[in-house]
Amino acid sequence: MTLIVQKFGGTSLGDAKKIHRAARRAVRAKLEGHQVIVVVSAMAQTTDQLIDLAYQVTDRPSRREMDQMLATGEQVSIALMAMAIHHHGHDAISLTGGQIGLRTDRAFGRARIREITERSRIVSLLNEGRVVIVAGFQGVDEARNVTTLGRGGSDTTAVALAASLGAEVCEIYTDVDGVYSADPRIVPQARKLPYIFYDEMLEMASLGAQVLHARGVELGKNYDVTLQVRSSESGEKGTDIVKESADLEQVIVRGAALKTGLARVELIGVPHRPGLASEIFALVGRREVVVDDIIQVVHEGGGSADISFTIDAADREQAKALAAELADEMPGMKAVIKEGRAKVSVVGLGMRTHSGVASRMFEALHQAGVNIENISTSEIVISCVINAEDGARALRAIHAAFELDQDPGAGGS
Amino acid sequence: MTLIVQKFGGTSLGDAKKIHRAARRAVRAKLEGHQVIVVVSAMAQTTDQLIDLAYQVTDRPSRREMDQMLATGEQVSIALMAMAIHHHGHDAISLTGGQIGLRTDRAFGRARIREITERSRIVSLLNEGRVVIVAGFQGVDEARNVTTLGRGGSDTTAVALAASLGAEVCEIYTDVDGVYSADPRIVPQARKLPYIFYDEMLEMASLGAQVLHARGVELGKNYDVTLQVRSSESGEKGTDIVKESADLEQVIVRGAALKTGLARVELIGVPHRPGLASEIFALVGRREVVVDDIIQVVHEGGGSADISFTIDAADREQAKALAAELADEMPGMKAVIKEGRAKVSVVGLGMRTHSGVASRMFEALHQAGVNIENISTSEIVISCVINAEDGARALRAIHAAFELDQDPGAGGS
Repeated sequence: MTLIVQKFGGTSLGDAKKIHRAARRAVRAKLEGHQVIVVVSAMAQTTDQLIDLAYQVTDRPSRREMDQMLATGEQVSIALMAMAIHHHGHDAISLTGGQIGLRTDRAFGRARIREITERSRIVSLLNEGRVVIVAGFQGVDEARNVTTLGRGGSDTTAVALAASLGAEVCEIYTDVDGVYSADPRIVPQARKLPYIFYDEMLEMASLGAQVLHARGVELGKNYDVTLQVRSSESGEKGTDIVKESADLEQVIVRGAALKTGLARVELIGVPHRPGLASEIFALVGRREVVVDDIIQVVHEGGGSADISFTIDAADREQAKALAAELADEMPGMKAVIKEGRAKVSVVGLGMRTHSGVASRMFEALHQAGVNIENISTSEIVISCVINAEDGARALRAIHAAFELDQDPGAGGS
Repeated sequence: MTLIVQKFGGTSLGDAKKIHRAARRAVRAKLEGHQVIVVVSAMAQTTDQLIDLAYQVTDRPSRREMDQMLATGEQVSIALMAMAIHHHGHDAISLTGGQIGLRTDRAFGRARIREITERSRIVSLLNEGRVVIVAGFQGVDEARNVTTLGRGGSDTTAVALAASLGAEVCEIYTDVDGVYSADPRIVPQARKLPYIFYDEMLEMASLGAQVLHARGVELGKNYDVTLQVRSSESGEKGTDIVKESADLEQVIVRGAALKTGLARVELIGVPHRPGLASEIFALVGRREVVVDDIIQVVHEGGGSADISFTIDAADREQAKALAAELADEMPGMKAVIKEGRAKVSVVGLGMRTHSGVASRMFEALHQAGVNIENISTSEIVISCVINAEDGARALRAIHAAFELDQDPGAGGS
């Protein structure tokens, strides 16, 4: 008898009807002869309502108390899910993060999983024929303080359970039916991918594909857990996230992504002396601004340099304060913050062994009349920072140039 | 340094403003030099909303899952209360029933407390100068399943903590400012009692005084914890619930109470044979109907008897089904269910040593034109079942007859 872990996100649990739909999926897997663990998030809206309540009480809620409060969202979901499965005539039991002994460090709000101490309890409940419903997103530290895992936390819980208990597969049910070659709301020709490799999915996730959080993918990769993204509405098989194998084709470009809501910080005429760049980015880090795509150009003669980097537009105020601080210290320097930026990228494991991808991408953007402001590349990603207004057009142009609407061939599953 | 336990009910925590008011009470006690434990209920409405959610999913929610879900109400309250105390610049930490090791039996929905295993953790947090906020109403069984204590559960938690940790006093904050000689909404002359004995309060509570649940009072009595009922709005001292002592006057009648929403079941012409009454009440018990004031009259000759008893009007359908069942078995018997009944009572420890109370009560009811249908007495209570329409008039008549609006004299506090 094989074990399946099913994870349902908040939008898949929005009301009693959706909870019953999710419960039927679990029951079906049970009837097909599997042992079933269901991991659930808080019902849609619940977390926002709780956060709102906290901010009515104080403008600076403690992280420990925030976690104590937020964890209740999943606790309500697990109880309702167990009730729904009972209603369908099957045995089920709900367990909180604390009850499965999901031990984390003490980093409230962004805790990392250390171990699952009550594995044997879960196994014996499964062996009794029960569907085990587990609260995602939450754990406890050594002193049994409640912690939460931060964004993508429920995916992480599901994958950790699948890894820890040797599940055959971890099914991630969401409100989309799979991972696409690009966001189908922007690119109507986008194709649902039958599979994608962990590293590709990691990049797609960090470039804004919201299907699955990078953290769960990373855990899946490390513990070799097959992830399946499925539609909670239809239940149809969507996209498998798997490890590289000779049986599966390494395409050059698997997908394209567009990340919007960015701003670009340009520091012009920075004195070019050793250690200065690291000082600047230490300051940036202290303000908890996340930066990306750093580029430094040293001017001829070597006396000064321009440094630019991308930030989330939400961090613009901190960036402005930072720019002012730097200008104080370096009188010759000029800081410019350009808002309304976007980043368009292509991702594919095959890039490691194929050349010509970059030039094909630049050509496509050029043909579409999109101006490239910055380029950054990694082993399996090429990204261009562009004007946000050009974003959709750029994504469509790249999608067409790499023929991502076409099945790459017989190697596909 | 003495320890104080403060308990706030759901109506005292209805919104952010009320939570801050409660937080200020805790801070004040801290600043006065006490160690402070705060026990909170779920915010008003929360429990009802959760129950509603469960019944949207299934018409027969499992008790275990109901407890798993309902316990979140208090968990939200403790976090918000801790945040509010932080906001006022003081240190506080929230703990769930599980986190303080409040162990109960496995009777989900009406669990009984067995022990508090994490006493030393609470003590060391108090010694660090923190206000300790504890979730009322909830505990865990041996397997760490979440249990709830049922009605009056938060009072019970507060009193249990006060007893277990040797608190000087357990303050119960509610939306009324004390225990009155009778319900002041019905009897405008009702007097706030400066103190009342445990046994008197127990009877008042079971007769419908909603200030405090009988279970908390009983625990207080058993462990000799002084309870103080106070207004959460003004914070003023209300009523102390204390043990009998020679310093305090044992009045003949401490208070009067009216319980409405009752029905009277009369079984007329029941064959009078040994064991039949116990059979009848075994049937009643199986239908989970709570009965009170049982009276049996054996007819002349001894061949048959009439049996009557009081039930909650909410149980009337079960009572009707029961009457039909009994009529089938005993062809000569007639069952009558009289709705719209009430019970008016007087309570006082002094009755044990004084006579004449009953006749004074009956005379007062007679003068007020109230017909008495049934009488029942215990050591410190005399109750009359009457027509519900006469209820308010009867309560006022009794209150006047025993001069309950007057301070009983120098012996009072």
